[in-house]
Amino acid sequence: MSDLAERLLQGDKRALARGISLVEDDDPVGWELVRAVYPKTGNAAVVGFTGPPGAGKSTLIGALIRVQREAERQVAVLSIDPSSPFRGGALLGDRIRLSEHFLDPGVFIRSMATRGALGGLAEASLQAALLMDAAGKDDVFLETVGVGQAEVDVIDHADSVVLVLIPGSGDSIQALKAGVMEIPDIIVVNKSDHPLADTMVREIRGVLALAPQEGWKVPILKTEASRGEGVRELAAKLREHREFVEAEGTLSERRRRNLMSEVLGIATMRLRRALEASLREDAEVQELLDAVVARKLDPASAASAILARGAVDPSAAGR
Amino acid sequence: MSDLAERLLQGDKRALARGISLVEDDDPVGWELVRAVYPKTGNAAVVGFTGPPGAGKSTLIGALIRVQREAERQVAVLSIDPSSPFRGGALLGDRIRLSEHFLDPGVFIRSMATRGALGGLAEASLQAALLMDAAGKDDVFLETVGVGQAEVDVIDHADSVVLVLIPGSGDSIQALKAGVMEIPDIIVVNKSDHPLADTMVREIRGVLALAPQEGWKVPILKTEASRGEGVRELAAKLREHREFVEAEGTLSERRRRNLMSEVLGIATMRLRRALEASLREDAEVQELLDAVVARKLDPASAASAILARGAVDPSAAGR
Repeated sequence: MSDLAERLLQGDKRALARGISLVEDDDPVGWELVRAVYPKTGNAAVVGFTGPPGAGKSTLIGALIRVQREAERQVAVLSIDPSSPFRGGALLGDRIRLSEHFLDPGVFIRSMATRGALGGLAEASLQAALLMDAAGKDDVFLETVGVGQAEVDVIDHADSVVLVLIPGSGDSIQALKAGVMEIPDIIVVNKSDHPLADTMVREIRGVLALAPQEGWKVPILKTEASRGEGVRELAAKLREHREFVEAEGTLSERRRRNLMSEVLGIATMRLRRALEASLREDAEVQELLDAVVARKLDPASAASAILARGAVDPSAAGR
Repeated sequence: MSDLAERLLQGDKRALARGISLVEDDDPVGWELVRAVYPKTGNAAVVGFTGPPGAGKSTLIGALIRVQREAERQVAVLSIDPSSPFRGGALLGDRIRLSEHFLDPGVFIRSMATRGALGGLAEASLQAALLMDAAGKDDVFLETVGVGQAEVDVIDHADSVVLVLIPGSGDSIQALKAGVMEIPDIIVVNKSDHPLADTMVREIRGVLALAPQEGWKVPILKTEASRGEGVRELAAKLREHREFVEAEGTLSERRRRNLMSEVLGIATMRLRRALEASLREDAEVQELLDAVVARKLDPASAASAILARGAVDPSAAGR
């Protein structure tokens, strides 16, 4: 284990890959690894990319990697892939868009899939991001597909958040307008050669005008990621945003809040897991659930009965 | 309390309103009320409406209420409103769209807001829906703004799910295509007099052709909700879907699964709440969190330490 930590801190790609697998599998060795390297974290600029599927996030990240590599920055990408009963080749395609960087030793690319009922993806993602940070990556890019709450929890761990839209992203504009989606730090309109790109920029400007903006003024950038256009400007804006939050002191505030919610998230996840294990194995618990389905016992009373029986041992869950 | 239950079971609107407020406030009397009336539930047809903000869900529900009232059905609407740091008048506007039904004694309309870090909205919503069901409503309509995971958890409690889109809902189509959004039971394209409505229907048909469909064939309906067009067809399709799931036996299967997750959700919510209370009050826990921020202790070890100290008492959380 300490050998794995050592190699990871030296930036060994295979050690990093192994570490993330351990974390993803919820292997105790993975958690130990994070513990060992945690004091060396906090240096990477963590950027979250969000936006509807099909907006070109992966292509944009690919182009951004090229720019950052020219500046000799080490880059890691973590793509969060929500699970779904049926899924086309969308994510495979995404990975192909990043393939030019697969052989570059300064670039590390990894996908992570949503867990099922156990949850915990946000927690596992932050652990993976911490390992990337410890491995000496200057930039850690978190990419999510979709814009739901689970994705927001992941993106919340970023120092800067980029929302990527394309002409036709009417639903996202409505979600911003209605306040369902949070205002990001930077907005990118990708596929800028589309005839409706300028209309989209105007619509976004209209929405931003309604939102109270203090301090940082959210820039709207136009990119054509497939040709690398506008990507240098994005890199510059990201640098500017980071300098801004550092100078303002909001970076450490943001990180403090995120680490708190990470601790709470991990603890809750473990309690829930212990609870689910108790539901599966315990015949008495099964009887309670059957009574709920038969409308003899209400769900809240069943929950109380399960908790009161002490079927969950928090100190056992802590392991 | 038993008087409140009695009045609620007789369909008293004020008793129902009071009961939902109690549940929303997490008042023990609210949970007792649900317990008292729970054996009388299970009769309502619960329909979930999802889709991007601005698609006209509220207008559609308003028009559907008119149709159901003609058939002398009692209707309840529960609108789930995700909280947001800044929010325009979107929801106020939505309520106005339903205002023609405010004075109808056969219609009950209620909003419920997302809770903060405590979570539990999905749980509170189901409790509210159970009360509506017990009060003798034939139809319970659950409406969400936005399409994230939190909303999906709410909609999961429905017997039938309707996705409402409009021409311009490109992001939602992409999300369906990428498998990020689940395939609903019925798809409505609202604002059918828009020049691009037929294009949208074709796009949706293309996406559905890719999805494995067994048994129920997802219909795509065109409506112009503001003029009531296509709404009778929607009511008929909802009836058809319900008959289908009843005949197939999938209704009871769906409900069994939903009740299970409700029990688990309530228990987890209570454990999390107990945990958060312990974090706030306990000086030693605060020290652990400070060590995490200072990068001296990693988040997972802090979570383990908190759980191992037994700061959370599950049987106390069960109350």
